[in-house]
This record gives sequence, structure tokens and C-alpha cells, in this order.
Amino acid sequence: MIARGEITSRALVDACLERWRARDAVVRAWTFLDPELALAQADAADAAPAEARGPLHGVPVGIKDILYTRDMPTSFNSPHFQNHFPKIDAASVAVLRQAGAIILGKNDTVEFAVNGRRAATTNPHDAARTPGGSSSGSAAAVADGQVLLSLGTQTGGSVIRPASYCGVWGFKPTWNAVSHEGFKVCAASFDTLGWYGRTAGDLELLAEVFGIRDDAVPAFASLDGMRFGLCRSPVWHQAEESAREALSTTAEMLRNAGAEVVEVDLPATFDGLTNAHKVIMQSEMRSAFLPEHRLIGKDLYPELVGILANEARQTRADLLAAQDLAASCRAEFDAIAAEYDAILTPSTAGVAPLGPENTGAATFNRIWTLLHTPCVNVPGLTGPEGLPIGVTLTGPRFRDRQILAASALLGREVTAKLPQAA
Amino acid sequence: MIARGEITSRALVDACLERWRARDAVVRAWTFLDPELALAQADAADAAPAEARGPLHGVPVGIKDILYTRDMPTSFNSPHFQNHFPKIDAASVAVLRQAGAIILGKNDTVEFAVNGRRAATTNPHDAARTPGGSSSGSAAAVADGQVLLSLGTQTGGSVIRPASYCGVWGFKPTWNAVSHEGFKVCAASFDTLGWYGRTAGDLELLAEVFGIRDDAVPAFASLDGMRFGLCRSPVWHQAEESAREALSTTAEMLRNAGAEVVEVDLPATFDGLTNAHKVIMQSEMRSAFLPEHRLIGKDLYPELVGILANEARQTRADLLAAQDLAASCRAEFDAIAAEYDAILTPSTAGVAPLGPENTGAATFNRIWTLLHTPCVNVPGLTGPEGLPIGVTLTGPRFRDRQILAASALLGREVTAKLPQAA
Repeated sequence: MIARGEITSRALVDACLERWRARDAVVRAWTFLDPELALAQADAADAAPAEARGPLHGVPVGIKDILYTRDMPTSFNSPHFQNHFPKIDAASVAVLRQAGAIILGKNDTVEFAVNGRRAATTNPHDAARTPGGSSSGSAAAVADGQVLLSLGTQTGGSVIRPASYCGVWGFKPTWNAVSHEGFKVCAASFDTLGWYGRTAGDLELLAEVFGIRDDAVPAFASLDGMRFGLCRSPVWHQAEESAREALSTTAEMLRNAGAEVVEVDLPATFDGLTNAHKVIMQSEMRSAFLPEHRLIGKDLYPELVGILANEARQTRADLLAAQDLAASCRAEFDAIAAEYDAILTPSTAGVAPLGPENTGAATFNRIWTLLHTPCVNVPGLTGPEGLPIGVTLTGPRFRDRQILAASALLGREVTAKLPQAA
Repeated sequence: MIARGEITSRALVDACLERWRARDAVVRAWTFLDPELALAQADAADAAPAEARGPLHGVPVGIKDILYTRDMPTSFNSPHFQNHFPKIDAASVAVLRQAGAIILGKNDTVEFAVNGRRAATTNPHDAARTPGGSSSGSAAAVADGQVLLSLGTQTGGSVIRPASYCGVWGFKPTWNAVSHEGFKVCAASFDTLGWYGRTAGDLELLAEVFGIRDDAVPAFASLDGMRFGLCRSPVWHQAEESAREALSTTAEMLRNAGAEVVEVDLPATFDGLTNAHKVIMQSEMRSAFLPEHRLIGKDLYPELVGILANEARQTRADLLAAQDLAASCRAEFDAIAAEYDAILTPSTAGVAPLGPENTGAATFNRIWTLLHTPCVNVPGLTGPEGLPIGVTLTGPRFRDRQILAASALLGREVTAKLPQAA
């Protein structure tokens, strides 16, 4: 609409701010939002000549508050970084600005995007429930209509889980398809930038902005004739009834639309990936958080202190065994998944639990983060009390656009079959 | 001496500044050095109570100018970033400060630590020759006695090559043993922080400061009875006479000291690693430099523009094949190298070539960077015209302290046998 001249960026930002003012006392999705700064960016966008307008021209975006922004503070939602203000943009924020985006503000997060202090954010569907973590504010702000797009990050399940709980589209690309420069590092082998939107098209728009390309994308016309793998994953025993139903409902929808759905059992070696994820993440955190460990020490939250002190006594041999298992399973999963147009798997064990202390678990996300595969949360289904629950489509590494295209078709089907979720 | 109260930090910094003033017109190792700022840090260190003194208390360190420093600009030696001043410390710089170090200034580098604009730095042993790249200023400043320690980074051969050319000790730890947060990313799978010093003990001191630990370190009493692998590597045909002599001289020294030296041939699969390094590095650069590509475009230096435009037409399949080969060779090399106390291999193809345009090549470093193994440049040998040439000791991943300990023993032998290099 901006491109067609049907709306100004100022009007769009004003509408976001209006929603924010009406709902912020309940949803609390932002650690920093300066209306004047946002409107100044919008006015500058509206004044820009047509030839200087990028694909996100005038569109407001929320930024998880572990990503650096040159004109806004970055707190990591840590009590130790409340006055932290690096005057630099994360690589991803710089790309958004160059594409014309308005940086609306900073979205609340679980402390350091790991654990510890929770975001103040509530689930827009039920304020007693968690929006999920760690990209809590990014998912909730989009779900609540306070912003159109937002950036999050995932090291365990921090993009996909909040998307499932909040009922929005979420995308974690293949590891390192997008630069992770300029955000607080947790585990360098896993940290992945991701994003949220209201539609599959939103996710694809940002994929285009971030230059994500597959070698080739199959031209899917419809679900009819497509081939999906159904992977319950090695942690299926932890799925609640709502997740089981979401998966079977989706599989049935796919079959009814003419797609083939084939059960995929991962080899027994994949059973070790959840533990491998833990060993790699915690070992790498000891490199990443060494400055905080030295400077802040025991005033960090107790679980982090325990990890940094290596109370679990993880050895370098443990780390190498985990890394080498991860690497061999990456190649193995690519080969398995190449037989399908996409792999269907749970996004979360169930609907959003009661918050704020419990932000849910990354149980169903960790192995995909470890495997570096592209993951889309397809929203639209609901569980108990009408709460949202998503399903994940994934596939081989660097088939990001293929998985996004398959997800768009699935999303259309979900919307058509369950109009209450539209 | 500082710890014993025999010298003040101010006297030490003054001595460095005196050397800098005497030599800077020739060596040009710094992009930023503010004597007043350095002396103010030294005075603060001298005023600190004994209980607040860390292991680097009052010791000046140079910082490669791609690492962020909260009180100094960071130019990447790029014409496009001359006014770049992120008010944040890289994780490694924060750790140094907490340990008591004085940040003396920023060391010149090849543009973005990749290619393009050369550092203004010359080789302290012969101003007509390159100090090597990309950590040119970091190596030269230590070699010339302008600073005691310095930080560099390596994505191809950017720590070890300058150490060999400048005749200083250099160390590239196992990948991600030290956080690479806070420097300009080139290739996330390879970027490794490293450092320079005047002795093996200098390298070990910083390893301790950066919390680098092996599971266990053999107690080497002397070279007598130790077991070394001699690995000419798949690029041996590119070794010049000086590198061949350095390797055979070192092997002879080891044997004369009672060590066993066994030829190690790498499996044929390792022949693909040089190309795999190129594919991974260039593919990952397209993620890392997307902001610069979008914002600066064709005004970047031509080789970088070609890589960012993917003129080589590298596919995602090429990248994945390279990544999976790298991963399997990492595990395979660990098993091969575990049979030895350390692996001896060339540091460079020869002595420093005539500069400034030619900064030498990373030929003999790339596969170790890709394999993530710890590498030490042991200096002391010389080639034509008395120019320095080093040799590398490496070993399995996360045997960093073992390789440092073996290097210290080798260094003692080199110094004893070649007194002119002491």
C-alpha cells in the first residue's frame, strides 16, 4: 500500500503506535519505544524520492533487544546492562534500514536470550500465559498488531516456540544464511537470526531482503502431488495432546489436499542430539560469556553462574564428540529430507503454559537448531481454550525458500479449513 | 616486574611510546594511538590497590583494528569506515581490560582483515618487505618492541603468517575457544581470535587470561622422548627452499634433542580442504558483508565486489559439500594427531616477500584454520638475508595448552642452537 501511495509510512507507524498505547499495559512487548524517533523515521521515509525506496520502504519493524541499534539502547533485558548503548547497528538491522524499514523499537527478551530474567511480555491471546521465550516481545508485538514484522534469534527454540504460542508466522533460516554479527552471542555454532510476520508472504519478503537464495526452488502450484515427511522426532514422548492433534490434523489436511505424507523415522544416532545440543550450547556459552563471568561473576543469575563455572563438568572431549555427531547428522538429515518437499514436525510440546516464570521449553526445536535446517512455524491451529499452536515445516539446509513456499501452501490450507483462525 | 613493584605501568607504557616515536615513521603499525589515553590508563593502573590487580596489570596490549574498543575508533582500515566508532568493547578486549591490560592503541590491518587496502605497516626486519597480512600491525608492533602483546584474527592465515614473517610468537587457538564477538565478521565458521607475544610464556599468559583449558596437559619435562608428527601438508609443493630448510632444521633439532619425529601423510580427502576453505570463506562472506554490499556496493574493492556478487557461481550444494568435508576431516585429523605430542608443519611458504602490495599467502595456514586446530608459530629460524621464518606446531582441537607447552620446549631449543636469533 505504501508502494502504491495508498498509505503513508507516518499513517502506518501512527496505527502501530495507537495499538501499542491501547495494549502496552497488558502485552508489554517493548523494552524501548520512542514514538518521536519512530515518527521521525516515518516522515523521512515519506519524504524520500521514489528511486530511493527499498522493498521495506516505510514499514515498521521490531528488533529483539539483544540486537544492536545505533540509535536505541540494547539491554539484553539484563539488570547489568540497563545503560548499555553501543552506537552501532547489527548487520541485520543495517540491512533492514537500507531496505527502507522503520525501526519501531526494541522487543523484550528473556535475559541474554538464554534464561534468567523473563521478559515482562504476556501472551496477547491470554495475559496469564507466556508468549514463549526468548524472543517473547518480538512474537507478541506482531501477534498483537503493534508492528508488522520483527526480528528474533534462536539458539534453542527462541524463534519457533514464541511463534507457536502467539499464533504468528516465524522463520529460522539455515544457520549463517543471515549474518549474526551484532547481537549478544550465546553459542556461536547455533545462534541464528530469525523473524516474525503476519503471513507467509511477510516471511518471504524478509528472506528476499536478507538475500536468502536456494540453488533452485521447485515450482509448487498446489499441495496436490507434493510429498511431505512426517517426523515425530526423538522427543515425541514429550508431546502433549494438543501437539499430537496439531500434527495429525495437519497431516490429514495435507492428505485431503492431495499430498503424500510419509512417516520418517530418524536413525538411532539422532537420539543423542538433544544432549549434544546441551553440551555444545553450554560449552560455547563459557567462551561467549567469559567477559560477563569475569566482570559480574556471582551476581549473574544462578543457572548461568553454574554453566559458566562448568558445574556439569563437561569436558573438551564431550564437546568434540557432540560437535562431530552434530556434523555427521547434518549431512545425514539432508539426505533423508531431500526425498520430500518438506518435513512436518511439532513446533512445541503444546500450547503456551501459564507464565511468566514458565516460558515453555525448546524440546521440539533444539535438534533443528543443531542441524542448522530452515524452520517455519505455520500458525492457524488451536488447542485447549482456543489457544494457538503451530506446526513446523523443515527440510535440508539451504532449502529455505523451498520450505517457505511449501509453508505458504500449507498455511493457505489451514486458513481455508479453519476459518476461525484466519 | 610490575607485580614485584620493580617497574610502574607508566614507565612501561612510556618505554613503548618512546620506541613507537622512534620507529613509527618506518614501521607504521598503528591506525590509532593516543599517548595521553594510554598514559591515563597506566596511571590508573599504578594507582590501583594490590587486591584489584589482574594477571595483565599495567601491561600494554595492541588491538587489531577490526576489534571494537569503547574508547577508540575501529576503522577496519577501510576508506568507508574512517569515522566508525562503536562505543563497545569486543568480548576479548573486555577480558583484557578486566585482567588489567592497558589498551595501547589499534593496529593496522589489511582492509576488513580480508584483502583490498593494505596496512601501511612495514616489516621491522626490512622496511621494503611486508609484515604479512591481515594482522600486519599487531605482529609488527610486537616484533619491533613497540608493545608487549597484541591481538590479531585469522580466517585464512592472518595470525600465523605475520608471526612467521616478523619473527614473533603467534597463537591461533582452537576455533571458538575464545569469543569472536565484537569484531568484523568475515567467515563465521573460521574467524578465530589470536595473539602475539615475544616469548612462549607470553602466549601462555594470554591463554590463561582467556580461560583456555585442555582436558589434561601432558607434563613435558623436555623434548627427550617426545613424539612429533612431521606433516608437509597437501600444499608442500608450494614451499620455497627457506620453508623446506626451516622444517628440516627443526626436525633435526628435535631428533638431536631426543624426540622422535615421524612423517605424517594426510589422507587423500584432505587434498580437497584448500578448495573447501575457499568455498566456505567466500560463501560466508556473502552473509557477513551483505550490509556493506548493499550500502557501499561497487565502491568496495573489486575483488570483494566479485566475491559478494558470487562471480565464481558457488552453489549452496558446493558450500554444504565443503562444510561436510571439513567436518569429517576435523574428526579424522584429531584421531591422526592424537598419536603425537604435536604436529610440525610450515608456517609460510617462505620469508616475507617484498611489499606492500604482496602480503604473502595463507597457503600453509588455511587447512589448519578450517580444521579448527590450535596453531603456534615458533620463531627463531632465519632464511635468505637473515629474514625470519617460523614453523608451526599444531595438534588436535582443544589441545591448546599441550601445543603451547610443546612449542615452548621447541622454542628453547631453537634459541639455544641459533643464538643469533635469541
